[in-house]
Amino acid sequence: MPTQFDPPSGTRDFLAEEFERRERAFAAIRSVFGGYGFEPLQTPAFERLDVLMGKYGDEGDKLIFKIMRRGEHEASGEADLALRYDLTVPLARVAAAYGSRLPSPYKRYAIGPVWRADRPGKGRYREFVQCDLDTLGSISPIADAEVICAQHDALVALGVTDFTILLNSRQVLAGLLDAYDIPEQTGPRALIVLDKLDKLRPEAVASELRDMGLGDKAGELVRALTADDSHERIRLALKPSERAMAGLSALDDLLALVSAELPPDRIVFTPRMVRGLSYYTGPIWEHVAPGIPGSLGGGGRYDHLIGQLGGPEMPATGASLGIERILMVQGPDVAPRRRLDVAVAVLDQRYAVQCYSFAAASRAAGLRSSVYLGSSGKLGRQLRWAADQGARWCLIYGSAEQEAGTVTVRDMTSGEQTPVLPGNLTAYLAAAAGLTEG
Amino acid sequence: MPTQFDPPSGTRDFLAEEFERRERAFAAIRSVFGGYGFEPLQTPAFERLDVLMGKYGDEGDKLIFKIMRRGEHEASGEADLALRYDLTVPLARVAAAYGSRLPSPYKRYAIGPVWRADRPGKGRYREFVQCDLDTLGSISPIADAEVICAQHDALVALGVTDFTILLNSRQVLAGLLDAYDIPEQTGPRALIVLDKLDKLRPEAVASELRDMGLGDKAGELVRALTADDSHERIRLALKPSERAMAGLSALDDLLALVSAELPPDRIVFTPRMVRGLSYYTGPIWEHVAPGIPGSLGGGGRYDHLIGQLGGPEMPATGASLGIERILMVQGPDVAPRRRLDVAVAVLDQRYAVQCYSFAAASRAAGLRSSVYLGSSGKLGRQLRWAADQGARWCLIYGSAEQEAGTVTVRDMTSGEQTPVLPGNLTAYLAAAAGLTEG
Repeated sequence: MPTQFDPPSGTRDFLAEEFERRERAFAAIRSVFGGYGFEPLQTPAFERLDVLMGKYGDEGDKLIFKIMRRGEHEASGEADLALRYDLTVPLARVAAAYGSRLPSPYKRYAIGPVWRADRPGKGRYREFVQCDLDTLGSISPIADAEVICAQHDALVALGVTDFTILLNSRQVLAGLLDAYDIPEQTGPRALIVLDKLDKLRPEAVASELRDMGLGDKAGELVRALTADDSHERIRLALKPSERAMAGLSALDDLLALVSAELPPDRIVFTPRMVRGLSYYTGPIWEHVAPGIPGSLGGGGRYDHLIGQLGGPEMPATGASLGIERILMVQGPDVAPRRRLDVAVAVLDQRYAVQCYSFAAASRAAGLRSSVYLGSSGKLGRQLRWAADQGARWCLIYGSAEQEAGTVTVRDMTSGEQTPVLPGNLTAYLAAAAGLTEG
Repeated sequence: MPTQFDPPSGTRDFLAEEFERRERAFAAIRSVFGGYGFEPLQTPAFERLDVLMGKYGDEGDKLIFKIMRRGEHEASGEADLALRYDLTVPLARVAAAYGSRLPSPYKRYAIGPVWRADRPGKGRYREFVQCDLDTLGSISPIADAEVICAQHDALVALGVTDFTILLNSRQVLAGLLDAYDIPEQTGPRALIVLDKLDKLRPEAVASELRDMGLGDKAGELVRALTADDSHERIRLALKPSERAMAGLSALDDLLALVSAELPPDRIVFTPRMVRGLSYYTGPIWEHVAPGIPGSLGGGGRYDHLIGQLGGPEMPATGASLGIERILMVQGPDVAPRRRLDVAVAVLDQRYAVQCYSFAAASRAAGLRSSVYLGSSGKLGRQLRWAADQGARWCLIYGSAEQEAGTVTVRDMTSGEQTPVLPGNLTAYLAAAAGLTEG
């Protein structure tokens, strides 16, 4: 492949098979989210530059694709627009723009591409689809429960069944830091280190904490988090903190809501789970699957982010599915794509009109159908074409058929050939395809 | 609405109702195109700048949204990528990149946004969806016929029924210029003037042609094109030109193919129809509807364009639907969107788990369902919420229901309330929704 015809670095062309696989996945997700009363939102591919800048930290800002000013302003070399970097900042803008004209609470999902000028690599793209669902304007734990269960059901609809939802809360984490004497200003950094407990050995994590100047209590925390009876130890340690106990109780309420609807042990209170993003304010969760590094998705409550992003001050909870990763794990479809159901051969251009009408009659039976568009008049060549298309039937109409007033329907699997009256073709094919009753 | 929260000039946010209306239209089109054996192709939002520049003429080049280089190169003020301007140049790139790995002929459709920095106006956007179908690699008139009929069927699937397909061909146009003594070098400009016959009076067009230095024969041509017996006059005038007669004969073949499948008088040979784009090489067509200025779509054969755009030299025919215009003509849906089928009230937070499970039971019946997420405990307020959601039923579960061991199903239309055993809820709702047999 001459590289000058490749799509730009980090982007992909989706040909039919892959496109349809992705569309099926998105449709399955949309159906699940819609079932929970989440409604779709689609925002433009680009936003004004000032809407995006400063929202993703210095590192994030560098990854934003900026669009140059146009016309007389092009020479300035300045940008005024930028491709969207995620689906959350556009949501905040929409919440601000539409205000009370949005339903309250506003339960929306968005499935669409975002663009990041990251270094491309295996499974890391510059154009990739995000799949978010969020509820704005409700402090109810039922809102968190809906997001968790909708996300769960979407994974199941995608055929992912072997996974666990790790659940924790920011209140519990704050209480833990408090209970183990970790000073407030060191807290965020300590949490980032504790988050490595899913990858590193406990001793390595404890040693990192010691290097940060944290004392023996930090080592105790690591042991408590990784012990077999971790839950009990943590609950006990949190007892003295009112805030932590309130967080635990809220988490137990949420667990009660979702546990009844999810398979046993699907969702597990996991005190060591931190999630990187600092904007979460309540429950947080993450989906992990055996053998798959990282997470399949996650989410949490973020009661101040919409305001911080330029939207109105409002409570919010939401989640994101790692759809590109899930599609990658699933791999391509097993069955190859069938391009046509009915292929129509053209042995004699004088009969082109009849052949064309046979394809139309096949479509009237609900079948994909097309006429041979090549230049060969040979049946063998055209039958190979029909086979390449994955066609179930090939229709043949030559001078013999013209004389007999029939069209030959060839079953491409058995090779069996049946003469059919043109007027009966739609009904014959529909019956053969099992599309009609009886 | 504070304008700083509007989407960028010329772009739109699509909230649920509009998004779903558009998606239904796209799904209908995909289904029709798929029925003809066209397969989907999705290319990235942006291409390398050099792939796009110089392909759309000077005016087009100015409308391309360019993306700035990143990182250390950002300071250069240069662009290296650009948002796609149409779906044809990416098709040419794909044809070049995948070559023989594409099916032959390659019948593909693409439905997706393109971006043009045009001055925004009523019905003119900077981000808008194009809807193209093309067949690469076939010189057969059946390929043209398939494109015409698939495009026709898509319009009908969108509910557009009152329209006409104007058909002409470049060979016929060339023959006409020849027959009426219009010199070859003046030809393209003369065609652009003749194209105005759908808007201007014949005298005005004739006068413009005279101003170009064309003699009385040009006036004769205008009269021939606008006469009641235009077809006969034109056919007669073309007789001496072998090339024109070949074009006419090819056009008659195409008419024979499609006429049998289309309603009577749907497609009409229209010698005055030119279509602006210069790259067409064979038949050309355009869809017009009474009362709608401009066209709903159009297409034609363009046997050299793919090569000119950087792809391999191959014959091609294709068409485009003016989907934004069609969606605008259609207007919004008559019936308002139903956000939920089943709304579940929460009168007492102690019963939140039960209420949550009722929503799940409703979803199990295939219904959209959600629990009240607000903070009011008043039934009246929650029933208003249920009505706002367009819910058909509201489920109520308070202490009376808790004692009786039932849940109250309120029909939101009649106000009728029915006690149902929780274990029977899914079956009850499914039956009520008419989703189950019997």
